[in-house]
Amino acid sequence: MADIVVGVVGAGRIGKLHINNMRNMANVRVKMVSDVFADHLGEWFETSGVEEITKNYEDIINDPEINVVMICSPTNTHIEIIKAAAAAGKNIFCEKPISFSDEETLEAYEAVKKAGVKFQIGFNRRFDRNFSKVRRLVETKEIGDLHILKVTSRDPEPPSLEYIPTSGGLFMDMAIHDFDIVRYISGSEVEEVYVQGASLVNPEIGKLGDIDTAIVSLKFANGAMGVIDNSRQAVYGYDQRIEAFGSNGAATAQNELESTVEVSSKDGVKGDNPLHFFLERYNDAYIKETSEFFDAIRNDKEVSCSFRDGIMAQRIAAAANESLETGVPVKVKLVD
Amino acid sequence: MADIVVGVVGAGRIGKLHINNMRNMANVRVKMVSDVFADHLGEWFETSGVEEITKNYEDIINDPEINVVMICSPTNTHIEIIKAAAAAGKNIFCEKPISFSDEETLEAYEAVKKAGVKFQIGFNRRFDRNFSKVRRLVETKEIGDLHILKVTSRDPEPPSLEYIPTSGGLFMDMAIHDFDIVRYISGSEVEEVYVQGASLVNPEIGKLGDIDTAIVSLKFANGAMGVIDNSRQAVYGYDQRIEAFGSNGAATAQNELESTVEVSSKDGVKGDNPLHFFLERYNDAYIKETSEFFDAIRNDKEVSCSFRDGIMAQRIAAAANESLETGVPVKVKLVD
Amino acid sequence: MADIVVGVVGAGRIGKLHINNMRNMANVRVKMVSDVFADHLGEWFETSGVEEITKNYEDIINDPEINVVMICSPTNTHIEIIKAAAAAGKNIFCEKPISFSDEETLEAYEAVKKAGVKFQIGFNRRFDRNFSKVRRLVETKEIGDLHILKVTSRDPEPPSLEYIPTSGGLFMDMAIHDFDIVRYISGSEVEEVYVQGASLVNPEIGKLGDIDTAIVSLKFANGAMGVIDNSRQAVYGYDQRIEAFGSNGAATAQNELESTVEVSSKDGVKGDNPLHFFLERYNDAYIKETSEFFDAIRNDKEVSCSFRDGIMAQRIAAAANESLETGVPVKVKLVD
Amino acid sequence: MADIVVGVVGAGRIGKLHINNMRNMANVRVKMVSDVFADHLGEWFETSGVEEITKNYEDIINDPEINVVMICSPTNTHIEIIKAAAAAGKNIFCEKPISFSDEETLEAYEAVKKAGVKFQIGFNRRFDRNFSKVRRLVETKEIGDLHILKVTSRDPEPPSLEYIPTSGGLFMDMAIHDFDIVRYISGSEVEEVYVQGASLVNPEIGKLGDIDTAIVSLKFANGAMGVIDNSRQAVYGYDQRIEAFGSNGAATAQNELESTVEVSSKDGVKGDNPLHFFLERYNDAYIKETSEFFDAIRNDKEVSCSFRDGIMAQRIAAAANESLETGVPVKVKLVD
Repeated sequence: MADIVVGVVGAGRIGKLHINNMRNMANVRVKMVSDVFADHLGEWFETSGVEEITKNYEDIINDPEINVVMICSPTNTHIEIIKAAAAAGKNIFCEKPISFSDEETLEAYEAVKKAGVKFQIGFNRRFDRNFSKVRRLVETKEIGDLHILKVTSRDPEPPSLEYIPTSGGLFMDMAIHDFDIVRYISGSEVEEVYVQGASLVNPEIGKLGDIDTAIVSLKFANGAMGVIDNSRQAVYGYDQRIEAFGSNGAATAQNELESTVEVSSKDGVKGDNPLHFFLERYNDAYIKETSEFFDAIRNDKEVSCSFRDGIMAQRIAAAANESLETGVPVKVKLVD
Repeated sequence: MADIVVGVVGAGRIGKLHINNMRNMANVRVKMVSDVFADHLGEWFETSGVEEITKNYEDIINDPEINVVMICSPTNTHIEIIKAAAAAGKNIFCEKPISFSDEETLEAYEAVKKAGVKFQIGFNRRFDRNFSKVRRLVETKEIGDLHILKVTSRDPEPPSLEYIPTSGGLFMDMAIHDFDIVRYISGSEVEEVYVQGASLVNPEIGKLGDIDTAIVSLKFANGAMGVIDNSRQAVYGYDQRIEAFGSNGAATAQNELESTVEVSSKDGVKGDNPLHFFLERYNDAYIKETSEFFDAIRNDKEVSCSFRDGIMAQRIAAAANESLETGVPVKVKLVD
Repeated sequence: MADIVVGVVGAGRIGKLHINNMRNMANVRVKMVSDVFADHLGEWFETSGVEEITKNYEDIINDPEINVVMICSPTNTHIEIIKAAAAAGKNIFCEKPISFSDEETLEAYEAVKKAGVKFQIGFNRRFDRNFSKVRRLVETKEIGDLHILKVTSRDPEPPSLEYIPTSGGLFMDMAIHDFDIVRYISGSEVEEVYVQGASLVNPEIGKLGDIDTAIVSLKFANGAMGVIDNSRQAVYGYDQRIEAFGSNGAATAQNELESTVEVSSKDGVKGDNPLHFFLERYNDAYIKETSEFFDAIRNDKEVSCSFRDGIMAQRIAAAANESLETGVPVKVKLVD
Repeated sequence: MADIVVGVVGAGRIGKLHINNMRNMANVRVKMVSDVFADHLGEWFETSGVEEITKNYEDIINDPEINVVMICSPTNTHIEIIKAAAAAGKNIFCEKPISFSDEETLEAYEAVKKAGVKFQIGFNRRFDRNFSKVRRLVETKEIGDLHILKVTSRDPEPPSLEYIPTSGGLFMDMAIHDFDIVRYISGSEVEEVYVQGASLVNPEIGKLGDIDTAIVSLKFANGAMGVIDNSRQAVYGYDQRIEAFGSNGAATAQNELESTVEVSSKDGVKGDNPLHFFLERYNDAYIKETSEFFDAIRNDKEVSCSFRDGIMAQRIAAAANESLETGVPVKVKLVD
């Protein structure tokens, strides 16, 4: 009965999350998962509800039943898998970023366009109930013309130092979500970025050539201005807020909290922390992004986050990196 | 592989909700659903994931594979089904209230005790993340000794006038959840109640002999005092708050909102309404109550809401009804 | 130039507060203050801005320049002073309660009516910006018809045990403000009260025949119902909230806080406590009540809190005391 | 008895505010006010409590009794008056900015230093209870090391178009307060600024060569980074918030609201707007800044906002103007 038959490439944290979410979706079957460490995944696989496991992603590409390839493997494998999946006529869901190379990304983009398959990039935050409400309020001009867009985006803890060198850096790895969300909320391209960055959380991160704290100043094509502040470590939890300020008012998405309970004592009135990290905060959004992708396939609709959206966020990240190096504002190149 | 095999009696709103939740539980199989209107449920049944449908709940009782009977049928059918299920050695989950008759309830209680089966009553709010956190704060004395317990419990809209006469009245139908939650939060029995009640929302409700607005004053065995206020209609949504005040402070569970977005305009700063009604607000709690029941069966643990809890809440409701009639405080009889 | 010339009887905490507030009012002159302990008030008097000090309140009554007598002495002296001031044609501002005796209060009421002087009772909370906004929202029916009125009124700490025996008890001393505010907010008389009370904060208070914790259930003449909860000790500060719930929504006055600063840490998000006690919370309201009284005198307008309001609050307190003793609801007698 | 005898230069909005506040201060006498439009101020003067009025500020300088000159006249008059007052040995309180010219400001600074008089600049926000609490939390490292400092500073409405050309521009006129507050909160100098600015509120402001919307990115000497966003028009009121984020958490000063009342209706839960503008929001801060200045004079203490603080804020504003023109980050010159 299932009309969506999925093969998942990569069974890391995010791959497992998607697999778990898809179990409960009507008419969706996760037929195969591939992972180079498949040998160590036996226990998890047993109860995963997935039918087959393989070390080789090509088994997925070559399975004629599979019509969706979900790419959750490390970034440096994306291009090859996208091209193979596109060539095989599979629809593709790919986690961010597509790649660290603009040139290779454009090649994959051409391959996908040529194949005519559906492609969605994993910008899950667009599907968050709070952020999509802010988007609606901007789009309908309930807050008037957008003047200032502010994004606070702080992780509860930095990744392992081991991960840093392959991460692509704070802008490509973490802030890329914010670069997408400002395009989504504003409905406008980012024209120019200026950044400040430093390793204030952990100097070891600096020694590895990365930063952990940043402020990104943005100019939008529609005349609005924006600012993102990032930290790899907010000790109080995952801080994810957006404020859209316009000629008729402001719309602010506050954090989602662990509970609504407030405790009053001699020391003050204490509320709960924000939900700890992305798995907790964005679980509903992950479900929604996948469901909408499947819906786009079934009904031949446009996807909500396109390949082009993926490229543009990467280009903003690249411009941010350049601004960090040069100390001056940098223009962002548009994709045709 | 499923060790929990469920038969659901009654496929109304709440029965369907439980069925939908159980689909996604590991090792749980919903084998059969019974409903006197089974003939009209074909379309729903098709996609429900349930294996069989019947008009006759006895088919569930007689199925040797089924080890859990979940009773979601109208209150006046509960006693008969509980007795039959207990006699057949099935574990029982029963929606509230058990019955409108104290005598019949006690008979069913004896039958369940004699059969030695697990029985859980559907007081879902105990499983709400916010309320259970308030309970913990009271239990651990983080707020000191409990002095005052306040429950705000208002529905977004009254039930149909048709339903009113069979509902058991506001106290037995709606406030019974609040009578349970105050026992849960306080960890104490309610000794006496005094109520004010009136039909302020809709006089038609009054003509049918019921009320739609009430304030219930409570004396607890441990010396604390409490108050519940109920309305059948809060136009801004399902208002479900608890405040526990004690010698070292207070713990307050605020409402869960539709989103965290706040809109600032000339007219003020507007936040979202509370989640509309119980299906939205307590969905996680419904899942948790069922999961914990299955866990109690699997590991032979005590259930979180016992038969006795069901009886005590009903007795508080009965005392509330008597206080409404007589205009004076009424003692609550304990179950041995 | 001053057209309001005041004599203040009693230089305790509240008398000094009023004197300090009046210093900054245009065309108001505090000519004299009387206090039986005048001998010990020298230092304060020096910088008080008051012109004369005396041990004998009659010096105030006999001063022809003084046209306002402000009574801030202990409750048991009020009747005598009111009668004397009225007989001398002085306008009178009197702190609550007027007296502990209904009979004597009525005599003083007659004396004031006969003299035709202005009389205002010190129910300062009517002048709080938050509570008066709630009143407006009820009065204009922005929340529809009032169904439920809830008042939370908790002091940060109990008075000294020494004071308890002369206080008149929790209802006459402390809750009397709440009895007034429910009449003010609802715009309706209270017809009946039922109370629960106990000494949960300090058993010594119980030994002195008083209570420190109470829940008061109220029936209003207009059909609405209400509840007040009182405690002599909220460790987190002066808890002063009102919630008016009606057919079209609710209006809630939250606490005023020490600051708007929130601190996020591993342990949660902590806001400040409510302003500590009445001097901090209601200072603006104290200024406003006095200013409006002087305005009523100058322009021969009706006062905002009349003698009758004082009597009615006392009668609710008396009914509450009776309910505490008898354990049943008690009707409140109206003043003609 | 007054040991502080004040002459106020300029009886505009801010001069009148200070005069009104000083009326209620013990041992403070406002002896004279000068204003070039003195002829039109008769009615106000009558009830102002000031003893004398003059058209000529030199009358203040020449009055031997006056020991404090408070400068509230237009910016382009400040230098001359400061020099005259310093030469006459008067202590000086001066509204911001000192002047639009760095050179002239330094000359006045020398004159003040040479005269050895006390000088305080009118950065009232340092005295706001919320901001000073945030400062304390940063200073005591309760939030750990400061990483990011965010200031939201939006006026409820732009000044008249007439005022714009003499205002000094958004940075010198409005954001100068924010430039000071970030130095105060961080306890660090600003080393570099990068700005975006545009006239989004009203293009007429742009035609006059000014902007009405800006984002200012800041580098601090202590390694922290900061961002200020400014708008001349937040339709919901004066938006004045600060967020200090550090290695152990964050401290956020929220807006002060018109009341604490929340109204729940079908349309959501609506709170009040921020206090309208600076007169409402910062009234307590204005009183405190003046009182502390008088205290510094009386007890020969350091003032809380020094001449140097005034110069530094002006230099940041100048750097911001340069960044706006050049489109690149600009270093801020330190005062020795």
